[in-house]
Amino acid sequence: MAGNSFGEIFKIHTFGESHGVGIGVIIDGCPPGIIISEDVINKELERRKPGQSKITTQRKEADKVIIQSGIFEGKTTGTPISLFIANQDQKSKDYSHIKDKFRPSHADKTYDQKYGHRDYRGGGRSSARETVARVAAGAIAKSILKKHGVAIHAGVTQVGKLKLQEDIQKLDFSETENNVVRCPNSQMAAKMESLILDIKKQGNTIGGVISCLIKNCPPGIGDPVFDKLHADLGKAMLSINAVKGFEYGSGFGSVSQLGSDHNDAWINEEGTIKTSTNFSGGIQGGISNGMPIYFNVAFKPVATIMKDQTSIDKDGLETTVKGKGRHDPCVVPRAVPIVEAMAALVICDHILRQKVNL
Amino acid sequence: MAGNSFGEIFKIHTFGESHGVGIGVIIDGCPPGIIISEDVINKELERRKPGQSKITTQRKEADKVIIQSGIFEGKTTGTPISLFIANQDQKSKDYSHIKDKFRPSHADKTYDQKYGHRDYRGGGRSSARETVARVAAGAIAKSILKKHGVAIHAGVTQVGKLKLQEDIQKLDFSETENNVVRCPNSQMAAKMESLILDIKKQGNTIGGVISCLIKNCPPGIGDPVFDKLHADLGKAMLSINAVKGFEYGSGFGSVSQLGSDHNDAWINEEGTIKTSTNFSGGIQGGISNGMPIYFNVAFKPVATIMKDQTSIDKDGLETTVKGKGRHDPCVVPRAVPIVEAMAALVICDHILRQKVNL
Amino acid sequence: MAGNSFGEIFKIHTFGESHGVGIGVIIDGCPPGIIISEDVINKELERRKPGQSKITTQRKEADKVIIQSGIFEGKTTGTPISLFIANQDQKSKDYSHIKDKFRPSHADKTYDQKYGHRDYRGGGRSSARETVARVAAGAIAKSILKKHGVAIHAGVTQVGKLKLQEDIQKLDFSETENNVVRCPNSQMAAKMESLILDIKKQGNTIGGVISCLIKNCPPGIGDPVFDKLHADLGKAMLSINAVKGFEYGSGFGSVSQLGSDHNDAWINEEGTIKTSTNFSGGIQGGISNGMPIYFNVAFKPVATIMKDQTSIDKDGLETTVKGKGRHDPCVVPRAVPIVEAMAALVICDHILRQKVNL
Amino acid sequence: MAGNSFGEIFKIHTFGESHGVGIGVIIDGCPPGIIISEDVINKELERRKPGQSKITTQRKEADKVIIQSGIFEGKTTGTPISLFIANQDQKSKDYSHIKDKFRPSHADKTYDQKYGHRDYRGGGRSSARETVARVAAGAIAKSILKKHGVAIHAGVTQVGKLKLQEDIQKLDFSETENNVVRCPNSQMAAKMESLILDIKKQGNTIGGVISCLIKNCPPGIGDPVFDKLHADLGKAMLSINAVKGFEYGSGFGSVSQLGSDHNDAWINEEGTIKTSTNFSGGIQGGISNGMPIYFNVAFKPVATIMKDQTSIDKDGLETTVKGKGRHDPCVVPRAVPIVEAMAALVICDHILRQKVNL
Repeated sequence: MAGNSFGEIFKIHTFGESHGVGIGVIIDGCPPGIIISEDVINKELERRKPGQSKITTQRKEADKVIIQSGIFEGKTTGTPISLFIANQDQKSKDYSHIKDKFRPSHADKTYDQKYGHRDYRGGGRSSARETVARVAAGAIAKSILKKHGVAIHAGVTQVGKLKLQEDIQKLDFSETENNVVRCPNSQMAAKMESLILDIKKQGNTIGGVISCLIKNCPPGIGDPVFDKLHADLGKAMLSINAVKGFEYGSGFGSVSQLGSDHNDAWINEEGTIKTSTNFSGGIQGGISNGMPIYFNVAFKPVATIMKDQTSIDKDGLETTVKGKGRHDPCVVPRAVPIVEAMAALVICDHILRQKVNL
Repeated sequence: MAGNSFGEIFKIHTFGESHGVGIGVIIDGCPPGIIISEDVINKELERRKPGQSKITTQRKEADKVIIQSGIFEGKTTGTPISLFIANQDQKSKDYSHIKDKFRPSHADKTYDQKYGHRDYRGGGRSSARETVARVAAGAIAKSILKKHGVAIHAGVTQVGKLKLQEDIQKLDFSETENNVVRCPNSQMAAKMESLILDIKKQGNTIGGVISCLIKNCPPGIGDPVFDKLHADLGKAMLSINAVKGFEYGSGFGSVSQLGSDHNDAWINEEGTIKTSTNFSGGIQGGISNGMPIYFNVAFKPVATIMKDQTSIDKDGLETTVKGKGRHDPCVVPRAVPIVEAMAALVICDHILRQKVNL
Repeated sequence: MAGNSFGEIFKIHTFGESHGVGIGVIIDGCPPGIIISEDVINKELERRKPGQSKITTQRKEADKVIIQSGIFEGKTTGTPISLFIANQDQKSKDYSHIKDKFRPSHADKTYDQKYGHRDYRGGGRSSARETVARVAAGAIAKSILKKHGVAIHAGVTQVGKLKLQEDIQKLDFSETENNVVRCPNSQMAAKMESLILDIKKQGNTIGGVISCLIKNCPPGIGDPVFDKLHADLGKAMLSINAVKGFEYGSGFGSVSQLGSDHNDAWINEEGTIKTSTNFSGGIQGGISNGMPIYFNVAFKPVATIMKDQTSIDKDGLETTVKGKGRHDPCVVPRAVPIVEAMAALVICDHILRQKVNL
Repeated sequence: MAGNSFGEIFKIHTFGESHGVGIGVIIDGCPPGIIISEDVINKELERRKPGQSKITTQRKEADKVIIQSGIFEGKTTGTPISLFIANQDQKSKDYSHIKDKFRPSHADKTYDQKYGHRDYRGGGRSSARETVARVAAGAIAKSILKKHGVAIHAGVTQVGKLKLQEDIQKLDFSETENNVVRCPNSQMAAKMESLILDIKKQGNTIGGVISCLIKNCPPGIGDPVFDKLHADLGKAMLSINAVKGFEYGSGFGSVSQLGSDHNDAWINEEGTIKTSTNFSGGIQGGISNGMPIYFNVAFKPVATIMKDQTSIDKDGLETTVKGKGRHDPCVVPRAVPIVEAMAALVICDHILRQKVNL
């Protein structure tokens, strides 16, 4: 009810602030007998970690997970799995300069409006550091999905005005981890990297788009009428820091299509039932139809910039705020594993939900 | 859990199929003492009703609500409110022609994949007729919001390639109900109407965009980290039939902006704390900040077209499907009250949720 | 959240007041393909119906169910099942005599304290008439349980001081429907009937105990640590009007037992793993172990008596209240199907919940 | 859904096994601005701690809480509060003797039936050690209740056949912490202590009853029809390890009362509206009426006894099990703070739930 839980059956509860003791997550409802190691989780955390390349923040966090419960002799027991990631970088900084000021386009003011009392250090609970818990939980969801043959791949397809024009379904996501931008096209990746470095030098930030492709999702998952598969994917993505938009399948582009062009005809291709086109994005009536699922997620430019900005303080007086420290000039490269993790949580949850109907 | 409930405190549960006895909704968690009449609800149902103009389906449904519980002497009692809308048009039709066929880009096949057994008449539960329950419940949410001074207005801002270029925050929504398209600009409305009529004549369909503006939303509502206000709005919109995309504030356009341009500076304007720009769309860190909230919702072209289409039947054999009956050439004019209803449900729920923190 | 829903996967939402249009329930999460007819439901409603014998209230209610959705061609579709039971006896009465008075040990005062505004006619939402919805939903749960071989039988084992001394596990529940008291022992039934008639003549009421036995419950259901099977059964029973206590297995009697006497030894009886005794009541650590589940439910004497009673009115002034109309001198005979229905809802829900672990 | 969460608004999620890294709890939905220190929590943990007297287990656990999030500068922030209690006693023991055996009346066999794979060390998740998380969370609930003036007191009123005969509402609970049994009557406490020591010497165990009195609970809390205040209290108590029964107000004794004796007359005592008797136990129609709430909780004798017992192993072969180590001869003295904690969680949650109606 208070917003820190996600999922229905495969359900996660997260906690922690950017500059507190650490960040953690309980996964409740994970089936028993799944093989999980800390390595599997740490591998995903590595992809999200700060300081991984010159186009990400230079902050240092070890980001190693501790499994506190729910896994015995290397396998899940069906009881709650508690994962904890200690904060390391939290002590050194001095946050008195923003204690009583509201940074523009951050959540400082709104947390104050909502709760009255807030942990102002580095954004506290509103910091994107919270997503480390999602990636950790997502690693377990991915392990379950692997057993079902489901493959989830995300990649950066736009930074600023640099935009890949190819069909998401045809991108080569195996290329993604080969460049620091996490773009599935190496030539575009080089251009994007140089743009981001340029923006960084200016002390500025820029937005981007992450596209995600889910292959081999079993048909029949998603729960109409409110928990349509794409509605839950949309909520999952929109809950990630800095996200401003979500579209799946034909998305906003469908608006100017005619029904006769947009409809996906069912065909029988030598015994395989499929659709000739896939504007539906693998989901019809909120339920997966066995075709690839794909969607786009829009990220705004990061709010922390290394420039003086006008703002107000707690007393409503004008003041100046300037970004200190080490921040991401563009959030999308590190957000790729977050998008995958949230997608994995949704698909895993809905696969388990569908068990009830079988 | 099965997907037919929405909201946390102001919670609705819907039921019903397009060609069954009727459609209904229970609203649980409505505070006591709210004045509600059937008229208030019927007024909203009128706006959604089929047959209201020559650009909508000519089906006939009386769509009058019956209040079955929870309201006594004209006021809510705090107990569940049950609303029922009888189906009238359901008897005459013959659906044997689609009993064993899967219509393209409909949910026929996926309901079959999910449940094995389905009500095939007119789409059954997957029909957009289900949204009549949402509009009925939304009318009650709107009554509560009125007490809080919140105003929600939606309108059609794009049909096919005809697109209003103005800032949503500056549109004159008082114009919306003056034309059959429900576009807040009368000149554009005329063009859109003629385009839709043209498409209709061809037996085809076309998509559109509905924009929504929420004024006077109290600051401090929305529950990070997963139930961010825009994440819940996004899910609400994506759960509406035919929706393919959602963006709020600067949306997909933010991707190519620089942080320095996108950040909304806090200012004190003669005692009123506000932001100089509003790319944030009234929501920061998932919490309302007191500025106007606005978003866009993309609708695909309706799947039912009056043309022969290739498809398969239950046995996987090729077959031909042709739309029969009376369908909407463009869904957005009738979807305007649905978008408003879903927005009202989300805002009302979050206002009640915030009471716990006070 | 507002208290009108029960269950997690097999979830019900009820609505309606005793003197409104009717009472209803939505069942969400019922698996598809279950054969259900109105007859199956009406048969259970018959057992709960007022006016069925001289020891129950003489009120008249037809209590026939209308299925409004979720069942097509005689089988569930996996979509919400809406059941509605019209009120018939609601019009004739005059309730002005209790409009501003609070009847002793009724919920008149507390509904006023909670909601401020209430439907005072016949108790409104607080009336035991609400349980008709539970029995209707329970009939569907029973149909599912039948497929799993689970048998649930309840019966009256105490009225006032007349108490059956036999082990619940050895009672002959086939006798229950052969007498108006619904006691599984015909001799005791005769004594109880005469006691209740005597109490009725005095215009008074008396309490009773219903015992319930569940056979063939599959092992492994129940969700520790909070949703232990007996905790959910306990809540289910305590939520029934007039219930004051719940005990399962050895119950309150276990308090004076020694561990060495109370422990149930596991034995292998010619290939069947079972316990030699069953003080555990078929549940260990909150999870069913395959042995019979049994429990007792204590009902207080009905609050409505045909005698003058002192009370206060809305203004806090002393007044006199006297029961009018036709009420039950003892609630337990009609509560037997309610206990069974609630037990069925809990067991059915937990069987579905366990599917996730398989 | 998986059973490890409790509450609706003030919601807790627990995790941890008896012999894992530790036990923990997330509290989500705690209002901001509540003053909380580790001391307040540790004080309650002290009361539950093993090794506190000669009539409890001699196991050693430091049981000091670590606050990991949600509290900043000594006050709650409205974000999730994570509490962690490390296990200390977990390393030394050897559990190979019960790895493949099922201890009688423990949850070994049922966890195996449910999950297939389990942490067999000391009961794992089924151990009563899990309740340390409840007591920690309950300490925060108590802090909130204190602000509302609500006082919750539990005490041991029966051990074996030694039973206090006084009205719970008249017990002197200030006496409870003055004796190791936690009985509110010092003379009875001495007898109970000597009985427990005697039982302990025999290597046996015995059951008991804890009674609980809640004073100054605000009227109007509790959510009919399913979440009646006593139904939620009942579930809370029944979810505690070893509990077999729950009754509130007149409880099982009401069964043999007449309505005319049992009804609580409303009276106006010099401006104070109250009932002349309180058989209702402060709750009518599931809603608090402002009178004291009281209830009894029955605990069975602890299953671990220092005697040889017959059982079976994983292969269904007969075997012998003998308790090893240090266990409680009677669980009730240490369960008193657990009962209080669970009661506090229920009352706190329902007070917050009622805010929505105001």
